[in-house]
Amino acid sequence: MTITVHHLNNSRSQRILWLLEELGAEYEISHYQRDATTNLAPPELGKVHPLGKSPVIEDGGRMIGESAAILQYLCERHGGADWLSAHDSEDYPGFLEWMHYGEGSFMTPVLIKIYLGTVGEAAAPVLERNEASLKKHVQFMEDSLSDDLHFVGSDWTAADVLMSFPAEVAIMQGHGENCPKLARFVEAVHARPAWQRSREKGGAYFIW
Amino acid sequence: MTITVHHLNNSRSQRILWLLEELGAEYEISHYQRDATTNLAPPELGKVHPLGKSPVIEDGGRMIGESAAILQYLCERHGGADWLSAHDSEDYPGFLEWMHYGEGSFMTPVLIKIYLGTVGEAAAPVLERNEASLKKHVQFMEDSLSDDLHFVGSDWTAADVLMSFPAEVAIMQGHGENCPKLARFVEAVHARPAWQRSREKGGAYFIW
Repeated sequence: MTITVHHLNNSRSQRILWLLEELGAEYEISHYQRDATTNLAPPELGKVHPLGKSPVIEDGGRMIGESAAILQYLCERHGGADWLSAHDSEDYPGFLEWMHYGEGSFMTPVLIKIYLGTVGEAAAPVLERNEASLKKHVQFMEDSLSDDLHFVGSDWTAADVLMSFPAEVAIMQGHGENCPKLARFVEAVHARPAWQRSREKGGAYFIW
Repeated sequence: MTITVHHLNNSRSQRILWLLEELGAEYEISHYQRDATTNLAPPELGKVHPLGKSPVIEDGGRMIGESAAILQYLCERHGGADWLSAHDSEDYPGFLEWMHYGEGSFMTPVLIKIYLGTVGEAAAPVLERNEASLKKHVQFMEDSLSDDLHFVGSDWTAADVLMSFPAEVAIMQGHGENCPKLARFVEAVHARPAWQRSREKGGAYFIW
């Protein structure tokens, strides 16, 4: 049965398309466009999931949300076992950490920055504290990437797919110069033929 | 080998102690206290993990961060297989979602609220929008809890352990009256002898 991806342009769901292309899975995209003025997700997404979020996938009549949960599920159920660290491997604890870090830790200061950014001058001191936290996170990612540009082990895993979005955010926020590994990681992601196919099908994706 | 939990009072690490008590695992607690004025984690946590966060556990010389990653790891490596949904079960996709939802989705508006709350009047319009989002999340949790008070399946799982903190936050923010299942879920968590032992060992925990 074909998988449906409820895909919002310029969003965290790009990496779901990327993984599906890597797996050679059959899928179709249901497209949603951000509001041109507010940049918010359109209300139609609220019909797909009570929280109106993207990505959500539909597989066999079941809806699944949360980016990392979707990646894990797709690898397990759609032929991506080699994109997961083996449970008894040395790499496994790190794999689990990165699968949770991307959304559970890194995205918090990123989203706080967006919210505080709309407030104006009064938020400056808090923004500064948040910026320091964000910088610490970016440095943590840079320091954690291996020389061959993987977050876990020596080959591509779902953790790299999940972490592609945080890395892209870091680059878009100007950290590329101080974080050469992160910059090269993002280039390596975008050089994957599967990523390029996903970009073509997904539509507008930030500066790329 | 004994597990060490780097535990911050009044924090998300309480549930790690709870699970360890449920598993009957051997562990010791390294205690950290929030600053009485700023409520921030103490700088000593920065010596444990580059991001200065809690919880972090240490097992066999290896540090592991991210609450849900820790819970998953402990269940797999320390005798908690029956706290996980089987990979081929009907429940499994939902289990994955909740394991990622707690930190990856719910905590975002909670933390935005804390940051915006320090800004004053200028943040009121954004705070209002954030509050609406938070309310939607709380209702989503209430609607998702089963009548026998579990997030997945018909028995306790690591997803309930992970979700205990979001549920407690919802209650502390006054949603208990409109969310009777969430209120009863939190009561059921706190009635577990293992939770009570973890509370005794962990120290101060909000209003409980």
